[in-house]
Amino acid sequence: MSYEILETIKSPADVKALKEEQLEQLCSEIREKLIDIVSVNGGHLSSNLGVVELTVAMHRVFDCPSDSIVFDVGHQSYTHKMLTGRYKEIGTIRCEGGLSGFPKRSESSCDAFNAGHASTSISAALGIAKAKQLTGDPSYTIAVIGDGSLTGGMAYEGLNNAGQHKKNFIIILNDNRMSISKNVGAMARYLGSIRMQPWYLRLKSGTERVLSRIPLLGRPISSVLKRSKSKVKHVLYRHTIFDKLGLSYYGPVDGHNMQELITALNAVKRSKDPALLHIVTKKGKGYKYAEDDSASYHGVGAFDIDTGEPISSKENFSAVFGHKLCELAANDERICAVTAAMRTGTGLVDFSKLYKDRFFDVGIAEEHAVTFASGLALNGLLPVFAVYSTFLQRGYDQMIHDASMQNAHLVLAIDRAGVVGEDGETHQGLFDVSMLNSIPDVTVYSPCYFDGVENALTAALYDTKGLAAVRYPRGGEGEKPDGYTRENINFEFIGDRGDTLIVTYGRLFSEALKAQRLLREQGRDVCILKLCRIKPIDPKAVDEAKAYRNIFFFEEGMRSGSVADMLRDQFEENGFDGHYHVRAVDNIYVQHAAVQSSLKALGLDAQSMAAAIG
Amino acid sequence: MSYEILETIKSPADVKALKEEQLEQLCSEIREKLIDIVSVNGGHLSSNLGVVELTVAMHRVFDCPSDSIVFDVGHQSYTHKMLTGRYKEIGTIRCEGGLSGFPKRSESSCDAFNAGHASTSISAALGIAKAKQLTGDPSYTIAVIGDGSLTGGMAYEGLNNAGQHKKNFIIILNDNRMSISKNVGAMARYLGSIRMQPWYLRLKSGTERVLSRIPLLGRPISSVLKRSKSKVKHVLYRHTIFDKLGLSYYGPVDGHNMQELITALNAVKRSKDPALLHIVTKKGKGYKYAEDDSASYHGVGAFDIDTGEPISSKENFSAVFGHKLCELAANDERICAVTAAMRTGTGLVDFSKLYKDRFFDVGIAEEHAVTFASGLALNGLLPVFAVYSTFLQRGYDQMIHDASMQNAHLVLAIDRAGVVGEDGETHQGLFDVSMLNSIPDVTVYSPCYFDGVENALTAALYDTKGLAAVRYPRGGEGEKPDGYTRENINFEFIGDRGDTLIVTYGRLFSEALKAQRLLREQGRDVCILKLCRIKPIDPKAVDEAKAYRNIFFFEEGMRSGSVADMLRDQFEENGFDGHYHVRAVDNIYVQHAAVQSSLKALGLDAQSMAAAIG
Repeated sequence: MSYEILETIKSPADVKALKEEQLEQLCSEIREKLIDIVSVNGGHLSSNLGVVELTVAMHRVFDCPSDSIVFDVGHQSYTHKMLTGRYKEIGTIRCEGGLSGFPKRSESSCDAFNAGHASTSISAALGIAKAKQLTGDPSYTIAVIGDGSLTGGMAYEGLNNAGQHKKNFIIILNDNRMSISKNVGAMARYLGSIRMQPWYLRLKSGTERVLSRIPLLGRPISSVLKRSKSKVKHVLYRHTIFDKLGLSYYGPVDGHNMQELITALNAVKRSKDPALLHIVTKKGKGYKYAEDDSASYHGVGAFDIDTGEPISSKENFSAVFGHKLCELAANDERICAVTAAMRTGTGLVDFSKLYKDRFFDVGIAEEHAVTFASGLALNGLLPVFAVYSTFLQRGYDQMIHDASMQNAHLVLAIDRAGVVGEDGETHQGLFDVSMLNSIPDVTVYSPCYFDGVENALTAALYDTKGLAAVRYPRGGEGEKPDGYTRENINFEFIGDRGDTLIVTYGRLFSEALKAQRLLREQGRDVCILKLCRIKPIDPKAVDEAKAYRNIFFFEEGMRSGSVADMLRDQFEENGFDGHYHVRAVDNIYVQHAAVQSSLKALGLDAQSMAAAIG
Repeated sequence: MSYEILETIKSPADVKALKEEQLEQLCSEIREKLIDIVSVNGGHLSSNLGVVELTVAMHRVFDCPSDSIVFDVGHQSYTHKMLTGRYKEIGTIRCEGGLSGFPKRSESSCDAFNAGHASTSISAALGIAKAKQLTGDPSYTIAVIGDGSLTGGMAYEGLNNAGQHKKNFIIILNDNRMSISKNVGAMARYLGSIRMQPWYLRLKSGTERVLSRIPLLGRPISSVLKRSKSKVKHVLYRHTIFDKLGLSYYGPVDGHNMQELITALNAVKRSKDPALLHIVTKKGKGYKYAEDDSASYHGVGAFDIDTGEPISSKENFSAVFGHKLCELAANDERICAVTAAMRTGTGLVDFSKLYKDRFFDVGIAEEHAVTFASGLALNGLLPVFAVYSTFLQRGYDQMIHDASMQNAHLVLAIDRAGVVGEDGETHQGLFDVSMLNSIPDVTVYSPCYFDGVENALTAALYDTKGLAAVRYPRGGEGEKPDGYTRENINFEFIGDRGDTLIVTYGRLFSEALKAQRLLREQGRDVCILKLCRIKPIDPKAVDEAKAYRNIFFFEEGMRSGSVADMLRDQFEENGFDGHYHVRAVDNIYVQHAAVQSSLKALGLDAQSMAAAIG
């Protein structure tokens, strides 16, 4: 495939300069390119394939960077990147030093707001629009938000405030009838009902077929039509939720029909009120495997284009967790699983099929998830909320206020804990330990191996009270010690006693093992204290460890609120007077790169550990 | 006033046993009692006066504790407490060792879910209802939520999931046409439009006046009426947002008309679908001063019943902040103020009048507030988000993901930082420092005095980059050092050099001063390092402090993620080898009590400090 047109696009002006009949080919080239790069680099395929026409249309109608486009989540911004001067670098996307997989203001003035987490776009765009209004800037601000992101409460907070902003503010609702997995909740069903309305507004080659059955409450339809100047009529039946919230609803429009899209965008551009344009797209559009199974192609690793098969598919922690939870649920009817739109990612597909009644996908709604699960827990059930570390940040208040404070026995299965790799800074799982450490009476397990996750999950469910967590990294297991049989889920000393002790937990234990070997090769013996239960730390571990003269704590998490600090407190209370060295993620964000590369950059890989000690 | 009927109520069964004609007197007695106790103990007056009839009606119709009533925020639960066996103790409300001002499961089995923060009730009630469904419990679950709480995104997340729950689940929307201050946002306007509808459902003495103008989309109205068995008809026009979200909407009903309420509650009890009952109440009902100015009577200190005047009204930090921000805004058009429904509480009333265009009350929507403000900040403005410490917990993810990570220069004015007193554990401002310390590149000031807040605010706006915060406690200033002129907003050593150093910041400095005096009286001199900029800590302060042999850090915040731990890191990097003692809030929640009493219990008052050192 050649990228004849795409290669000529150096900026949005070049998109505008194309002839209308070239746009279809441009879209085809973009799709080819998307499949090509994601098959190599991994990334968010389905969502990017879904917004090709929309993105091209936006750059035909609006002027970036003066007009601001805010992409919700931002995983669908690859086409936008290609059209805004970054086509040449698109092959570096998600690679260390290359383009980010999400919008970054530091990459381009065409990226109006950084993203990564869901449901922020309306709030951000509203802030931008208000700032423009106050500074007399007449340009447009556009939030592009998927139906999935609309399940997050923050999007509603934005909508609740959006009606007040009067001009040049547009929300594009990209409705692909699913978020990451099949969408759930009342709003999803409601969008479905709009799509099915008999008065569905069709736009075909400039003609209108506005059906006569529109139940207008106010003025007769003819006067409405007369008042409209554009070819796209804003159907003024005041029925949609969005109209009731003060927005002018336009749509639905076929999001893969370039002409409809451009007509519709021009129409909303002229809206006197803040407008919501509802477009309907197909996730994965144009790549068969992604169309058929868009959930699996939501975020993917490298794959074979011809077969759609992933290039590597080794067992991972999410799957291990999911299997174990199913096994436990088979014997305990109280066990429930809660996910915030991450059924596939957190390994809960089997559970959702086997225990339909006890499975709750609440949408991208981590706040609700924690409090809902607390309600379950306080009334006799054993809920497990499986959530990515980075998204749990949304539930911090609820963990304190609704779970911990009233001793709700809720288990958090924290996936993607630690460095996550190519998704980069917005997705790093580096804050959960600090959050949990600040909350009274939480129990936290951070195992290193699959069997440890299984045992820690069992222990969290049956041997703890109140809020408990099991956290584990993205991907699979690392190196195991010689003669490994099973993981201790409290603590373990590995190696001969000497004067130097490495303390660590979770995935870094595998690095510590290698560091121990490297040091041994240099003739130096160090012992390792491997923690698995990181809160509370067993006083027996402290008692044994305090005899060492040099202690090196390596931690894959933020320094402030770290386990290292908690352990040091316990050491000091117990009269430790040796040297205590801590290496954690200190006051920085970690950019996208392979996990091993990030660990090295943070000084947390085996070589760095050995160098720090040796 | 005698409490003839109220005194006879030992449990909800006694409410049911009353004759219908006694209910009006019961409500009068409850109102008298509410005014009486809040005038002495302080508390939430307006909201409690607004739900007297509702609460009595609920206890006539439902059976607590088997039926679960979840009060949103919970500040309106005083009547509920009186009717569920706690009348005798109601005079102890908000006092140390007495009843809490919020629902507490530990107080009564009739308190179904603890609360304090807004917008959690639907999620919690849904969890309870699902648990009942799964365990075969046929009892009812009722969420009571105000229109103010409905501005929070979490309530929408709950609504989005509520439609799926099929039976015995009821949401009562207590619409008093305002939350804490005058309500804002599209939902508030929308509720207003429902109240104004011509097809408003009136219920008078069991007769129906369902107007004929109801624009039914589906079956004819006569068949709907025929199908209804109750005297209250569920008006099946599918127009309300709530119907679109899968709930059956009933109302609006006069929330001060006992008969209407009881009829309506019996009707929703029979609903086959999850029901939303919209009642309209008047905040402060029955007490003139509260009716006229319900914002000021939302949460009050002790006041004079006859005049409505507060008993003490000394200058406080919120007012100082508000004045200073107005002064700065007069000279800088970029300055904006954002509040999450706390215009009065955070001292922004003057600002909202003087700079209407630059004032944003976004509703109880801290998530939106942070991201919206980031949008303002990244486009040339200088936003200040004034927020209570405890409510900022809702914005943790947004502070990381939307503000800090893209270096939005947003200033947080964190009110009620530290122990807050009578509001108790749900409202303690003890987590903000841990949150902010975990976030890279944040600047945090924690001054002790009014002039320090003024100077720190100026510094945060003009001398910092990225996310910055100024935090200050509830109430007024404490003791000042002899010869005080102005507060240093970085650090200051107070006292003669010796071998012992107290380190502290914020309000505790006043306690440290007193401790210093107490120790001097015992012949012991200690120096104080008073920090004001607590992040980052100035290396010069560390350099000077490390010469001390004994360092005592006293901190009014959680131990994990504390400034004490950050300082110790800096000490160790600089070769400090003295003794380092930390006293902070360690792994516990702090119950309601007077601030000074809580400080004493935490070992953070002057006497405890002196005792720890001496």
